[in-house]
Amino acid sequence: MSLTIETVTIETPDSFNSDMEAAVKASETLLDAIIDAVREKVVVDGKVNSKKVEAEQRATHGLAWFATYVEALKEMKGYAATMSAEGRFGEMESLITRMAFGEYLAQIFGGIPMNQGEIVRLSDFGVSEDAVAAAQTSEVKRLMAEGNTPEIRTRLVALMEAAEGSASFGDAGLDETMEAFREEMRRFADSEVTPHAHEWHLKNEYIPLDIVNQMAEMGVFGLTIPEEFGGLGLGKESMCVVSEELSRAYIGVGSLGTRSEIAAELIICGGTEEQKAEWLPRIASGEILPTAVFTEPNTGSDLASLKTRAVLDGEAYKVTGNKTWITHPVRADMMTLLTRTNPDEPGYKGLSMLLATKPRGDDAIPFPAEGMDGGEIEVLGYRGMKEYEISFDNFEVKKENLLGGVEGQGFKQLMQTFESARIQTAARAIGVAQSALDLGLRYAQERIQFSKALINFPRVIDKLAMMAVELMISRQLTYYSARQKDHDKRCDLEAGMAKLLGARVAWAAADNALQIHGGNGFALEYAISRVLCDARILNIFEGAGEIQAQVIARRLLDK
Amino acid sequence: MSLTIETVTIETPDSFNSDMEAAVKASETLLDAIIDAVREKVVVDGKVNSKKVEAEQRATHGLAWFATYVEALKEMKGYAATMSAEGRFGEMESLITRMAFGEYLAQIFGGIPMNQGEIVRLSDFGVSEDAVAAAQTSEVKRLMAEGNTPEIRTRLVALMEAAEGSASFGDAGLDETMEAFREEMRRFADSEVTPHAHEWHLKNEYIPLDIVNQMAEMGVFGLTIPEEFGGLGLGKESMCVVSEELSRAYIGVGSLGTRSEIAAELIICGGTEEQKAEWLPRIASGEILPTAVFTEPNTGSDLASLKTRAVLDGEAYKVTGNKTWITHPVRADMMTLLTRTNPDEPGYKGLSMLLATKPRGDDAIPFPAEGMDGGEIEVLGYRGMKEYEISFDNFEVKKENLLGGVEGQGFKQLMQTFESARIQTAARAIGVAQSALDLGLRYAQERIQFSKALINFPRVIDKLAMMAVELMISRQLTYYSARQKDHDKRCDLEAGMAKLLGARVAWAAADNALQIHGGNGFALEYAISRVLCDARILNIFEGAGEIQAQVIARRLLDK
Ligand SMILES: Cc1cc2nc3c(=O)[nH]c(=O)nc-3n(C[C@H](O)[C@H](O)[C@H](O)COP(=O)(O)OP(=O)(O)OC[C@H]3O[C@@H](n4cnc5c(N)ncnc54)[C@H](O)[C@@H]3O)c2cc1C
Ligand SMILES: Cc1cc2nc3c(=O)[nH]c(=O)nc-3n(C[C@H](O)[C@H](O)[C@H](O)COP(=O)(O)OP(=O)(O)OC[C@H]3O[C@@H](n4cnc5c(N)ncnc54)[C@H](O)[C@@H]3O)c2cc1C
Ligand SMILES: CC(C)(COP(=O)(O)OP(=O)(O)OC[C@H]1O[C@@H](n2cnc3c(N)ncnc32)[C@H](O)[C@@H]1OP(=O)(O)O)[C@@H](O)C(=O)NCCC(=O)NCCS
Ligand SMILES: CC(C)(COP(=O)(O)OP(=O)(O)OC[C@H]1O[C@@H](n2cnc3c(N)ncnc32)[C@H](O)[C@@H]1OP(=O)(O)O)[C@@H](O)C(=O)NCCC(=O)NCCS
Repeated sequence: MSLTIETVTIETPDSFNSDMEAAVKASETLLDAIIDAVREKVVVDGKVNSKKVEAEQRATHGLAWFATYVEALKEMKGYAATMSAEGRFGEMESLITRMAFGEYLAQIFGGIPMNQGEIVRLSDFGVSEDAVAAAQTSEVKRLMAEGNTPEIRTRLVALMEAAEGSASFGDAGLDETMEAFREEMRRFADSEVTPHAHEWHLKNEYIPLDIVNQMAEMGVFGLTIPEEFGGLGLGKESMCVVSEELSRAYIGVGSLGTRSEIAAELIICGGTEEQKAEWLPRIASGEILPTAVFTEPNTGSDLASLKTRAVLDGEAYKVTGNKTWITHPVRADMMTLLTRTNPDEPGYKGLSMLLATKPRGDDAIPFPAEGMDGGEIEVLGYRGMKEYEISFDNFEVKKENLLGGVEGQGFKQLMQTFESARIQTAARAIGVAQSALDLGLRYAQERIQFSKALINFPRVIDKLAMMAVELMISRQLTYYSARQKDHDKRCDLEAGMAKLLGARVAWAAADNALQIHGGNGFALEYAISRVLCDARILNIFEGAGEIQAQVIARRLLDK
Repeated sequence: MSLTIETVTIETPDSFNSDMEAAVKASETLLDAIIDAVREKVVVDGKVNSKKVEAEQRATHGLAWFATYVEALKEMKGYAATMSAEGRFGEMESLITRMAFGEYLAQIFGGIPMNQGEIVRLSDFGVSEDAVAAAQTSEVKRLMAEGNTPEIRTRLVALMEAAEGSASFGDAGLDETMEAFREEMRRFADSEVTPHAHEWHLKNEYIPLDIVNQMAEMGVFGLTIPEEFGGLGLGKESMCVVSEELSRAYIGVGSLGTRSEIAAELIICGGTEEQKAEWLPRIASGEILPTAVFTEPNTGSDLASLKTRAVLDGEAYKVTGNKTWITHPVRADMMTLLTRTNPDEPGYKGLSMLLATKPRGDDAIPFPAEGMDGGEIEVLGYRGMKEYEISFDNFEVKKENLLGGVEGQGFKQLMQTFESARIQTAARAIGVAQSALDLGLRYAQERIQFSKALINFPRVIDKLAMMAVELMISRQLTYYSARQKDHDKRCDLEAGMAKLLGARVAWAAADNALQIHGGNGFALEYAISRVLCDARILNIFEGAGEIQAQVIARRLLDK
């Protein structure tokens, strides 16, 4: 490659700025037209009709994807503005932003792949040709023509090569405190996690408790818990940065905090003062490892229908029923256990969340507790914590451990909490995608074929460049959703978008990084073979992609 | 679903016929414009310049994809015509054909995903806006508007449900002999392979030799070997049908014949009369299991650069060097061994193919032969035959076992043979995709969520419908390439297209069928978790997707 590499800080030229501005505006107008068109399909008697929303899923879920893209572009524009203002908008940031606009606008007009097989297009909405034509302004056309070009991709990858080993390709856009935090996590992950992760995976071993303890010492389990309860009292961005960097080393480690986050968030938002005082400090310190017990064999996406019963009997609930897909339950000390306390309410209103204590077990006796039993589910990836199905038979939970002290609140408490969990999952996806990119980039530099390193082939460059661009888009969307969550407003819309896109981006990155490895990508010996497996979970758990799209669509249509 | 299910034989209405005709013509004209535009980029001094072809890979490989789509539509049109003429064009065939045209035309104009991340668009070629506009004829627009609609997808999946258990969704288009053959293979696969495949995979076990023997008895290893040499003397379509059905049960079993096919084809095309007489009957009968020994640690895609030396020493070649990624070598009796006989020719002209005998080994002593050693490579999927790296140190091969008796022919002999191998790989991809569809369909019928079977949700319907459509497209393209190969003309173009598309289709099908399984798709217990892993190999071996695109592009540009 004959390009000279020097990273220069450049202001976004005015024309690019105004093009972005115009393109975001045009996309938003188009989005409004789409929403109107979809409403036509799903409104009955002036109200959004759930059956229609379902019957028209290509349009409603497609709407969710379009809206996600429009939000993504908006965030990229905001990113460019902030970075420019702070003199941090260098060449790499500029190239990434240009590619992002070029590619995502082209997809908006040409079709957005919701996955491999389902491409949603403007024609699926019944939006008028005029509206589409109007959205293709000269600025939009220019961004498309000048954005995702071979020259930009080549130059971007050359800059990435020069920047190899840096925390992110392009300034991630956060403040110094967060970046210092990122560095700390990276150092830890590089020395304690990366060297062992693949072996843990291959042997289906637990992540050593020593890692958990070190994380606890760094405060990872109490990041967003208020200081009065022993946490660090930080915003959700900190959770993102930590999750990213740990997941970059190993998704299992990046997920150790997920259940602490869920439990803490449940208690912060829905717990009584006693419950806060009792649980939060011990969750924050890592003394207590929680596990999240919601899903049942017959109830995954449709969580509101779950059947596990909790019957109040004197001072205790007796829990009976089957749960499945429970992550890290054996070594957990407490369960956030979603149960039906009111059998006459088959829907979400009959559900209550219990904070149940349990003793730790081991492989031999996983659940040394009265009324609790279970077996391991072996999995493709996402190992290191182990998955279990669990059966409860009159398992006792103290009455005082009913979250919030009032029955029937469980589902809404959880939905609110899922917002955080989904933001955290989006951050895990970013970490996985970054890991795939790191592996793909390194391999492409080292592997020689046809007398040159793979990184010199445009098809390899194109894959790496697109990974870097989508990573940045996902980052900005995720940080945005994290900030929204900090504002204490309902943000299942924003969290859903971050999770929806992040899962696809991570899966694509893993897939393409594996492809760069050729045959070696298929060898268990190479880390990318694990990263592919790990990446596949992201579009399934914490609300599958289709459920995320459903949530987003509802929020957009109900507005 | 309130639709009544009855399969009726319908003629393609004249208007649909003429729309297809017009659309194919328009696409071909557009393709010509693309070829011209790409030539502008890559021709230097009146000749296609290899460096430019490489530097412009987005355009040249994109061209390969566009051409593949145009060929696919052409084959679908031909399929519709043949089926109609024979009264076999029922409602399902009609719906599939309509969807195929609707979706693939939309991708031609909106962007073709070469994989997750690289979408190629007309704008990447520099083809004129006029040419694009001219191609969007009223017929093309009608096919796009009326093709891939929610109504068609819903109806198609309803028909698929009614047809569950049939060999293919929609008449596969072959003649009675082939379909009888398919039935025989399916019966065998259903009873002998399907019940055990998953266990073989999970335990990383060999496919039992008993299976190999049964296949031998059915003539599987001699399908396309001339009758005079003990084979069945059938055309390549038969190889496709057999590979499909066996791979549908397990890719490992569907691949048992791959190396016999390669060895036989090498010998048929390039062997001396003595070599034919010596080897072919024993390959046909299954007495001899061959293994294909080409790839080296430093040489995969760029096969022409391989380094393993064969030095003639009296009556024998002495082979020294390292090979890797060798499938099923331990239980093989002979190797098609590509070596460099002329060290002064570093390119393809220095290569020769040896037909080397070897004793069978086992896990304990894999290679009980002088000058040959090796170790297993553990893999994500595609198990059952085991992969090895192999080192040769003055390993002896009799001089008379030089294929064709003349040195320096090895590479071209192999390239010609790869045509067959790639067609066979396309057929394996179809089998894997069909298996994914079967699993996804069944799960969608059985799994209830939100009080209904998943198959009632449009997002699930859409996935299944697209799988069936792309399966049919892949089938027609693969059968077409098989027939071309039977005509004894060079067909790396056609074979490449079938392999290129088939690999993507299988991967997408596996990915989406796993998604339909939700969390269970991630459990090792469920077959789809294996099918995903198996599917991933198809875009890597037998020439990676990027190499396939390169081959296709060269042929189109050189024409
Ligand atoms: C590795 C792993 C770890 C997990 N950890 C936990 C945990 O710690 N705690 C816990 O409680 N749970 C956990 N889960 C469960 C997880 O949350 C569920 O798997 C997930 O919610 C999906 O539910 P399901 O598997 O039942 O799929 P289903 O709900 O059966 O869905 C199957 C498919 O149908 C689609 N689908 C469903 N409904 C619709 C609809 N209305 N419209 C369109 N499509 C639809 C889905 O999107 C999906 O593609 C885990 C799962 C896995 C695999
Ligand atoms: C399970 C398995 C079974 C196999 N079985 C056999 C067997 O039985 N016998 C045998 O001989 N081999 C076998 N192979 C080897 C297989 O054919 C090679 O893996 C394949 O040819 C790719 O070569 P590679 O792995 O060296 O990848 P590389 O050639 O290193 O390629 C790596 C990546 O770079 C891309 N790339 C390479 N060159 C270019 C270029 N010029 N432009 C753009 N992109 C490029 C590739 O497409 C790929 O994505 C097997 C491999 C596997 C994984
Ligand atoms: C599908 C799903 C989104 C809910 O669907 P649903 O049953 O139709 O529920 P609704 O959307 O009607 O919500 C029920 C109630 O909760 C409320 N609610 C939903 N999300 C909320 C949120 N983020 N914040 C506050 N309230 C919320 C709704 O407003 C509604 O209340 P209302 O009746 O007073 O209006 C939910 O079941 C889900 O997230 N499933 C995936 C499960 C999952 O992620 N599992 C991961 C386990 S690790
Ligand atoms: C990349 C690849 C296509 C060849 O690239 P290359 O080295 O540039 O070779 P060329 O395309 O220039 O071909 C070399 C010669 O073979 C000839 N050739 C190539 N394909 C041919 C075919 N299908 N039929 C007849 N001749 C063929 C060419 O015409 C050329 O001959 P010429 O010099 O007389 O014109 C080849 O190495 C390949 O297929 N790699 C993938 C490896 C693979 O599939 N491995 C699987 C192992 S299981």
